[in-house]
Amino acid sequence: MDDVYKQSLELHRKHRGKIEVVSKVPLTNKAELSLAYTPGVAEACREIGRDAELAYKYTIKGNTVAIVSDGSAILGLGNLGAHAAIPVMEGKAAIFKEFAGIDAFPICVNTQDVEEIISLVKNIAPVFGAVNLEDISAPRCFEIEERLRAELPIPVMHDDQHGTAVVVLAGLINALKLRASKKESVRVVMSGAGAAGTAITKLLLAYGFKNFVVCDSQGAVYEGRDGLNEEKQALARITNHDKQSGTLAEVLAGADIFIGVSKGGLLTAEMVRTMAEKPIIFALANPVPEIMPDLAKEAGAFVVATGRSDFPNQINNALAYPGIFRGALDHRIKQFTEASFLRAAEALAAHVTDPEPNQVLPPLFDKGIVAVVKDAMGE
Amino acid sequence: MDDVYKQSLELHRKHRGKIEVVSKVPLTNKAELSLAYTPGVAEACREIGRDAELAYKYTIKGNTVAIVSDGSAILGLGNLGAHAAIPVMEGKAAIFKEFAGIDAFPICVNTQDVEEIISLVKNIAPVFGAVNLEDISAPRCFEIEERLRAELPIPVMHDDQHGTAVVVLAGLINALKLRASKKESVRVVMSGAGAAGTAITKLLLAYGFKNFVVCDSQGAVYEGRDGLNEEKQALARITNHDKQSGTLAEVLAGADIFIGVSKGGLLTAEMVRTMAEKPIIFALANPVPEIMPDLAKEAGAFVVATGRSDFPNQINNALAYPGIFRGALDHRIKQFTEASFLRAAEALAAHVTDPEPNQVLPPLFDKGIVAVVKDAMGE
Repeated sequence: MDDVYKQSLELHRKHRGKIEVVSKVPLTNKAELSLAYTPGVAEACREIGRDAELAYKYTIKGNTVAIVSDGSAILGLGNLGAHAAIPVMEGKAAIFKEFAGIDAFPICVNTQDVEEIISLVKNIAPVFGAVNLEDISAPRCFEIEERLRAELPIPVMHDDQHGTAVVVLAGLINALKLRASKKESVRVVMSGAGAAGTAITKLLLAYGFKNFVVCDSQGAVYEGRDGLNEEKQALARITNHDKQSGTLAEVLAGADIFIGVSKGGLLTAEMVRTMAEKPIIFALANPVPEIMPDLAKEAGAFVVATGRSDFPNQINNALAYPGIFRGALDHRIKQFTEASFLRAAEALAAHVTDPEPNQVLPPLFDKGIVAVVKDAMGE
Repeated sequence: MDDVYKQSLELHRKHRGKIEVVSKVPLTNKAELSLAYTPGVAEACREIGRDAELAYKYTIKGNTVAIVSDGSAILGLGNLGAHAAIPVMEGKAAIFKEFAGIDAFPICVNTQDVEEIISLVKNIAPVFGAVNLEDISAPRCFEIEERLRAELPIPVMHDDQHGTAVVVLAGLINALKLRASKKESVRVVMSGAGAAGTAITKLLLAYGFKNFVVCDSQGAVYEGRDGLNEEKQALARITNHDKQSGTLAEVLAGADIFIGVSKGGLLTAEMVRTMAEKPIIFALANPVPEIMPDLAKEAGAFVVATGRSDFPNQINNALAYPGIFRGALDHRIKQFTEASFLRAAEALAAHVTDPEPNQVLPPLFDKGIVAVVKDAMGE
């Protein structure tokens, strides 16, 4: 077993998980108890019973996020179920608190039925100020997010989609700047048409990228291709206006940007060499990227980003979601919008004052990130 | 507004609620992040994916309790809904942590449909080691608890029922000792046939009380009385074997013990005077007891208990539930049983080394309580 896995398992065993729930108020004598609990607590109940909005004033609601997963798409591991999702959601809750002061709690649900999940999240919403959907497989994640956004009075975001898209866009903004390229004129080829791929595609188009081809395991996705499911048909309608067909290798020739959210190792050095001058390679498959950074660089890549912490330019959602949710809570936004994600990406990119090919994103532990992303959510 | 209410509201406003979720592991650099989150966390996920029981080893599950309420019976305030329940459930979570080191989280549900609540609690169960149902109105609470106990692999307890029953029984054990009376020979009259009344009745009968009459607002409950709902018919079958009828005042004459879980002020001094010598009065309506302690004492009461913290002998669930759940988690019990509640009550009573009429229960902040109740749950 790799050292990091061994050490991590030991950390989990030793602490029996990674988060705890603690009291913010003293409870050491009868007087304190009578304020935090009965009889005093009755007054807060009465007030909120009169006006549910007052939950934001007198309870944890305004600072609390539900991290909801059904365990159907855990990291790159697949469908391992609700119990196996707990360590990831706890980790995320720990990050929420450490990075952004947010109280988040894991809701790992023992059902993968779309309607049951929607109904459940709606029913538990009173305690929470926002909902972070996590590690839910496509295409189920699309319907769950869409329905909850429409039916809940608190903001809902599937982080695997939009958190990733925000960070990818932020990195690309700086990569294009370094390359002196325009978003309108570069050609982008993306490998992968799942949750992250779909969200990245939509956000990049909204930002102003024009020439965009999505590939799945069968090659380029284009309108009219046989056997496309509903989600891919929708992608085909908004991308690949020339209806290019062919394998990934074929459509990649001459492209300026490769974005991989697919499978480790499927991008070869040869394929990179067929791309335009100084290509930008975002190889985000985890743990093994579509191409290893040194190999990509050797083949002429100008900027290389991966999902890994042991290489430069890590596309890490933690650059985005703490600030996104901090902003959502502080500005009490009703719902996340594409415009707010674009602003978050631009703010994140602008926070890198002096971008370089090996630093198109700010370092993860830069204390200023949450503030700039948060501010961007409020405009 | 009473001072305690004003101060409590201010406490809630100032802290924006009473609990927070914090990290137990350090997250200050990439190495730490790679253990608590990706890539290291994948190993715990894989292990649990292989065997869901390992969630007890690697996650918060083994120390975490869901406090579930639909806000249908909040304190003595009635049906104020899910949002208004949050302050109570937060207070309870704070007490769980401070008294017993348990991580508890409020699940306040926006539905009062029995089937929806059951399905929801079953679906969110993976993260939790036990479920505390709270402030759910009768008779819905009976079905919800019964079904969840049958259908969930973790212990489930409606605290308004069993927590109360355990503390009442503990107090009565010491009161009878002081009075040198035997449980088999005393006559008990209870006013109130809701959730708490039903649970107290059942636990006291299981303990060995024989002569027991329950009254509702129509007077004594007896087999064959017109208009009894299903739950009261069940009570009638196990109590009042002589099928006594009449008002509370009528059946109370000659009784040794009065237990009120009904309505403030309905027990008069005159009624107390008709009871047996040295009667025991547990007047538990909140915030106004069935009779005020001084009035009861004047009328000859030997031991008086209330639900209030400003009089001696407070029947406070917090004497029981922290230890009950601590024991359930530590001993990994599969389900709460009547036998375990009886042991908990006996342990709580025995913890008062020198009972007196004004001290039939240990003081709430006695640090030894949780340990003795916890131990009782494991036998």
